Amino acid sequence: MTTALTSPPSPDVAEKPMLLVLGAEPPPRLGRLTGRARIEYADESTLAALLPSADVLLVWDFGSHAVRRVWPGAGPRPRWVHTASAGVDHLMCPELAESDTLVTNARGVFDQPIAEYVAALVLAMAKDLPRTLELQGAREWRHRASQRVAGTRACVVGSGPIGRAIEHTLGALGITTALVGRTARDGVHAPEELDRLMARADWVVSAAPLTEETRGMFDARRFGLMQPSARFVNIGRGQLVVEDALAKALKERGIAGAALDVFEHEPLGPDSPLWEVPGLIVSPHMSGDTVGWRDELGTQFVELYELWEAGSPLPNVVDKRRGYVPGH
Amino acid sequence: MTTALTSPPSPDVAEKPMLLVLGAEPPPRLGRLTGRARIEYADESTLAALLPSADVLLVWDFGSHAVRRVWPGAGPRPRWVHTASAGVDHLMCPELAESDTLVTNARGVFDQPIAEYVAALVLAMAKDLPRTLELQGAREWRHRASQRVAGTRACVVGSGPIGRAIEHTLGALGITTALVGRTARDGVHAPEELDRLMARADWVVSAAPLTEETRGMFDARRFGLMQPSARFVNIGRGQLVVEDALAKALKERGIAGAALDVFEHEPLGPDSPLWEVPGLIVSPHMSGDTVGWRDELGTQFVELYELWEAGSPLPNVVDKRRGYVPGH
Repeated sequence: MTTALTSPPSPDVAEKPMLLVLGAEPPPRLGRLTGRARIEYADESTLAALLPSADVLLVWDFGSHAVRRVWPGAGPRPRWVHTASAGVDHLMCPELAESDTLVTNARGVFDQPIAEYVAALVLAMAKDLPRTLELQGAREWRHRASQRVAGTRACVVGSGPIGRAIEHTLGALGITTALVGRTARDGVHAPEELDRLMARADWVVSAAPLTEETRGMFDARRFGLMQPSARFVNIGRGQLVVEDALAKALKERGIAGAALDVFEHEPLGPDSPLWEVPGLIVSPHMSGDTVGWRDELGTQFVELYELWEAGSPLPNVVDKRRGYVPGH
Repeated sequence: MTTALTSPPSPDVAEKPMLLVLGAEPPPRLGRLTGRARIEYADESTLAALLPSADVLLVWDFGSHAVRRVWPGAGPRPRWVHTASAGVDHLMCPELAESDTLVTNARGVFDQPIAEYVAALVLAMAKDLPRTLELQGAREWRHRASQRVAGTRACVVGSGPIGRAIEHTLGALGITTALVGRTARDGVHAPEELDRLMARADWVVSAAPLTEETRGMFDARRFGLMQPSARFVNIGRGQLVVEDALAKALKERGIAGAALDVFEHEPLGPDSPLWEVPGLIVSPHMSGDTVGWRDELGTQFVELYELWEAGSPLPNVVDKRRGYVPGH
C-alpha cells in the first residue's frame, strides 16, 4: 500500500478494500457494502493474524481489549479504525496513537439515550423508587415524602456531546447544571472548579472519557467534598471511579446515594461486593443502548465507510493522544 | 350568624372566628393565626359535634371521608371549607354542593411534584429500571436494550394545573403530549377524542378529578384500545380506574406496563392482588408529597385565611357541582 494513509483505494486497484470486523455477531446494515468491500470477521484469537491484511477495522465488540493487545505486533496496520462506542480507551495504545491510522468513534448515537438514562436515575433516586419497589415486594403501604428535582443543582463532568445532552435534559427538568470539561470555555468550567462545584451539587454525574488524567478522579477525597444529601451517577467508564471509596462513602452515609452503570471490571461478577452496597443502583452498562441501537451503529459506520470510499474527510475523528473527539 | 356567608366576621364581633381542623396532627404554619382565630381540632368521632360551631373548616386529613358523612346532619355549617388536597371527592356531598359554603382546594402545591413523579415512572418503565433492581438483587449482570422516551406520544387525561404540569414536563423530555379535558379548548382535546388518542399513545396518564363522569373511565374497553407496547399511569384517583380490568390487561399483555399511585381502597391492604400484578408498579399515594409539602400546604391555607379575614375574594374556589376548580 503506497497510497496516502487516509485516502481511499484508487479506482484502478481491482482488489476491494478489506474490512475486518472484530465481533461475535455480524453488524446490521453492512449488507449495503456488498460488492464494495471484502468483509472478514475476527475474534480475539484470530485478530493478530488478520490485522495485517485489513484496510479498515471495525471494532464492533466494544467490550474487547484485543486491539490494544494485538496492535503493537508485526506487519502492516489498517489505515482506519472505527469503534462502535463513544469511548476509545479499550483500543488505544501508544503505537496506535503514534501511527497515521485514523480512529473514529460512534459520537452522536448514545447522547440522547444516555441523557434520558441519567434523568431516569436522578428522578428514581429523588422519588425513592427503589424503596417503593422493595416495599411493594413486601406488600407494605408506607407513605414517604420524596424530593423535588426542580431547583436542585447538578455537576456534570465531561463536556462532550454526552455531557451536553445530560446538561440539556437535566436542565429541562429544572435542574441547574454545571458542565466541567478539560478546558474552560463557553458554558464549560475548568477542572480547577470541579471541587467547588461538587461540594455544592445535589447530583454529580460522571460522563468523562477515560484518559490518564481522568482515571480514578472520583476518589475518597472527592466523595468527601460532596454533601451528605447528594448523589453520584457514573455512566462514563468504571475506571473513573475508585469503587471502594464510593462504597465506603455510601456505607458511612457520606453521600445519600449512587448509581453505577459502568465498572472497573465488566461484567460485574456475582461475588462483587458492589451488588449490595446500601443506596447503590447497579446496572449492566446499558445506559446508551436503546432498542435499535445496533442498527444505528451499523448505519453510522456504513455512512462513514461511504465517505472514506469517496475520499471525503471523516467526522468523529478521535484525537488519539487526548483519547476523545475534540469539542466544538 | 347573620353575616353574608362568604364575608369575614365583622370587626365589632368580639369573638374570634372558630377554625376547626380535621386531622390527627396540627398543621404547620397555623401559629401565624394566633390571636386571630380560635383553633380547635376534630377527629372523625368529634367532627359531628364540633361542626355547627365552626366558621371555617380545614380538612387537613385529606384521606378522611368524615366531612361527607357528617355534613348532611343537623345544625349550622361552616361558611368556608378548605381541603389540603387537589381533589375534593372525599368531602363533597349534595348538601354541601347545594349550600352557600365556599370550598377551596390546594391547587398549585402538587403540580410540579406530581409532574416529576410521572416523569420518574415513565423513564423508569422505559429504561426497565424495576427489572434492573430485581437483577441487582439476584447479583445478575444481564444487559438489555431499553427504550427512548423522546419521540414517543403521551395522552394525559385531566387538563387542570396538574395535567398541564405533566404535559410540560413530558414535553421537556421530547414526548409529544395531548391533553384531554372536560371540554375542548386551546390545547385541550374533548372527551370524544380520548379513545383515538389512547389508541395511539405510548403513555396514558390519568390526572383527572374524580366526578360522576370520570368514575371508572379507564375500563376493560379503554385498556383494550391501547397498544400492547403502551403503558398506563394513574396519579389522579383510584376510582378512575377499574382495577380488575387493568390487572387483566397486564396479565394478558394487552398493555406493556402500568404504575398506580392511587387506589380504590387506600391504604392498599396486604392481601390485595394488585401488589403482585406483573408489570405493575404500586406506590402509596405519594406522587405529590415532596419534602416540605406539609409546610407548603400550611402556608397556602394561612394565606387564604388572611384573604378571607380581610374580606377579599379567595383563589382556588371549587365549582362544587363539577368537583374541581374550573380552568382558565
